[in-house]
Amino acid sequence: MAAAQLLRGLVRAARSPPALTLADAAGRRPLSSAPPELAAGRGARRAALAAAGTLGGLGLGLWRWQQAAMAASEEDEDEEELRQRFMAPPVSGLRELRRRRRELRSRMELLIMETQAEVCRALAALDPGAAFAVDTWERKEGGGGISCVLQDGEVFEKAGVNVSVVFGLLSEEAARQMRSRGKSLKAKDGKLPFCAMGVSSVIHPKNPHVPTMHFNYRYFEIEEADGTIQWWFGGGTDLTPTYLNEEDAVHFHKTLKEACDKHDLKLYPKYKKWCDDYFYIEHRGERRGIGGIFFDDVDSPSKEEVFQFVRSCAKAVVPCYVPIVKKHCHDSFTPEEKLWQQLRRGRYVEFNLVYDRGTKFGLLTPGSRIESILMSLPLTARWEYMHTPPESSKEAEILEVLRNPKDWVH
Amino acid sequence: MAAAQLLRGLVRAARSPPALTLADAAGRRPLSSAPPELAAGRGARRAALAAAGTLGGLGLGLWRWQQAAMAASEEDEDEEELRQRFMAPPVSGLRELRRRRRELRSRMELLIMETQAEVCRALAALDPGAAFAVDTWERKEGGGGISCVLQDGEVFEKAGVNVSVVFGLLSEEAARQMRSRGKSLKAKDGKLPFCAMGVSSVIHPKNPHVPTMHFNYRYFEIEEADGTIQWWFGGGTDLTPTYLNEEDAVHFHKTLKEACDKHDLKLYPKYKKWCDDYFYIEHRGERRGIGGIFFDDVDSPSKEEVFQFVRSCAKAVVPCYVPIVKKHCHDSFTPEEKLWQQLRRGRYVEFNLVYDRGTKFGLLTPGSRIESILMSLPLTARWEYMHTPPESSKEAEILEVLRNPKDWVH
Repeated sequence: MAAAQLLRGLVRAARSPPALTLADAAGRRPLSSAPPELAAGRGARRAALAAAGTLGGLGLGLWRWQQAAMAASEEDEDEEELRQRFMAPPVSGLRELRRRRRELRSRMELLIMETQAEVCRALAALDPGAAFAVDTWERKEGGGGISCVLQDGEVFEKAGVNVSVVFGLLSEEAARQMRSRGKSLKAKDGKLPFCAMGVSSVIHPKNPHVPTMHFNYRYFEIEEADGTIQWWFGGGTDLTPTYLNEEDAVHFHKTLKEACDKHDLKLYPKYKKWCDDYFYIEHRGERRGIGGIFFDDVDSPSKEEVFQFVRSCAKAVVPCYVPIVKKHCHDSFTPEEKLWQQLRRGRYVEFNLVYDRGTKFGLLTPGSRIESILMSLPLTARWEYMHTPPESSKEAEILEVLRNPKDWVH
Repeated sequence: MAAAQLLRGLVRAARSPPALTLADAAGRRPLSSAPPELAAGRGARRAALAAAGTLGGLGLGLWRWQQAAMAASEEDEDEEELRQRFMAPPVSGLRELRRRRRELRSRMELLIMETQAEVCRALAALDPGAAFAVDTWERKEGGGGISCVLQDGEVFEKAGVNVSVVFGLLSEEAARQMRSRGKSLKAKDGKLPFCAMGVSSVIHPKNPHVPTMHFNYRYFEIEEADGTIQWWFGGGTDLTPTYLNEEDAVHFHKTLKEACDKHDLKLYPKYKKWCDDYFYIEHRGERRGIGGIFFDDVDSPSKEEVFQFVRSCAKAVVPCYVPIVKKHCHDSFTPEEKLWQQLRRGRYVEFNLVYDRGTKFGLLTPGSRIESILMSLPLTARWEYMHTPPESSKEAEILEVLRNPKDWVH
């Protein structure tokens, strides 16, 4: 299976700081804790890039960047810095990212790596005894990623934070599908060099009084036949409670609004509505949760300004969510409340498998890492035929909000 | 919500014979056990048909049949016969079905109703103490159905057997999607009168040594602008074990083969392969189960011959499956075996929500009854990140068969 082939290294990391076990690529200074698959993995990345080189006669900017990334992976890394800042070494190599530090691709890759580490450490600190498993994986078509998963802890049922940085050549059809506005792109020989990177995460807690949280921030570049680079950002952070707690809802939305307002007062209302519209389970007439913000295909006012906005959003993830987890993770709950949580988990699965564009695109893309895509599914879920909560119950209260989204901060 | 609006009557039926509670349509002889919604439901059906009548100036055969069905629903039914033969009165009314007994639509509706009752009774007999809930529902665009669900019994986690008989007008696009070969159909004013009926069922047992079983037999008619009626059958029966039991697999496939062989020796091999190809979870590289038979869009050699074949298949459901349930429903099992069952249930959900044509078509069709469509989902399911069973384990054994389907009867 493609997913299994792609997995090159599986590393159980200590909670904080995470263990770093990727060996020196050339094998000159192997770490004793690095499993033998890793060296093969690094070799496989080189081989894949070399093979891709046969398609690389285009002499395009993105392709040159890939070659540079390959060279960087063969250099020694600053292990101490890596260990402190990230969950694993960046796909493009730290030295390469430093060398090209003014390029937006490098700054975005550092941002998603830092966000992954920040979120993982903040969550691990809340769940003593549990640890994030850190998997580094490579995509044979180009690039790779780092998946961090904490499963069956005391506080979290399943928490996944995934980084991916992938590049290569896209068909015109795939490029069109990738872009939500479906703008057509001019390809040379039917292929478009692309680079896509992002951090995405779903956190499913055990306690039904702690909500599920999802976030995702991503950046795309596609190079057209004439050398023009089309770029855009997408992302969002949203909350899915089992039971409504108005104070939590206000805190979550307010924190997001503050992050947005620093950049433009129009952003929060626009992206709040986009979130309510996007996370809609049409066949149920319900939203997946109480929303947050969501945006896609954003390429104005400028690359720098959108990046700064995305940075503010990514930095808001921990302050949005961690106080809510702390507040409720020791709340007592009944078996009936746990059951209602399981039914809501079922709806989460319905949204992700039936509607979510990212999941659908991922499942249909050859070479994508299935385990990282389906990491978003809860550990457990339930479907009861014709389940309807009694009127005026706490269960009916959240359903009402899922059917008719509220304005939480005005 | 549309699903809730569609539900007109909810009837808890005794196990065998099932209670019959649909009141006389004209209200002349209401049964004391009939809830008040039922009369409203019958009224709603009449209203819907009357409304549809404004579109019915086409004067087509199917439309005349609908009017006749409406008239029949206003006649007294032979309640004793209904009670013995079916789980609830047929959508088209027993008298109308008798009057038009030579028409294939009537014979198919009786067959699906009988199959529903046969299967429900056979299963209920295996799970003393549990009962099928019987819901009769109407579709405001035309037709309705009977959903029978047994949930959280001793033997069955969730067993659903659904009959639907729906008619009305389809857009050309919807008609094309309905037909797997995508054959184009000539419509008058862009609309095509259609009639679709079927019985479908998914049985999820509790014990991990008892496999999940699914079957579905269906019949479609679409009337083109020139009055030509396009018709076809589809269906299949397939098994999804948590653990492989070769003897069971052989029994299941052999029983299906015998049903097929009575009609044409070419059918079993052809439909066995179609089943393996259809129930394929592409992103996992696995089939959903160990197969059975599957066919769609079958309209040769003749309507009568295909109907007789479908009849044999429907009659084979109980002998295929019930002996396997009886054999294993008291087998002991470990918590680890239950966990593996839950992970396999997760894959079942993935297939049904991501790939199954019937589910996707249902979810996207306005006015469809969501609870009846998603009845196929298990009560509980589980997703673990990167779960891989040990080599040479019982879990690895079934995965091997799901990746490389076997020939069970040669």
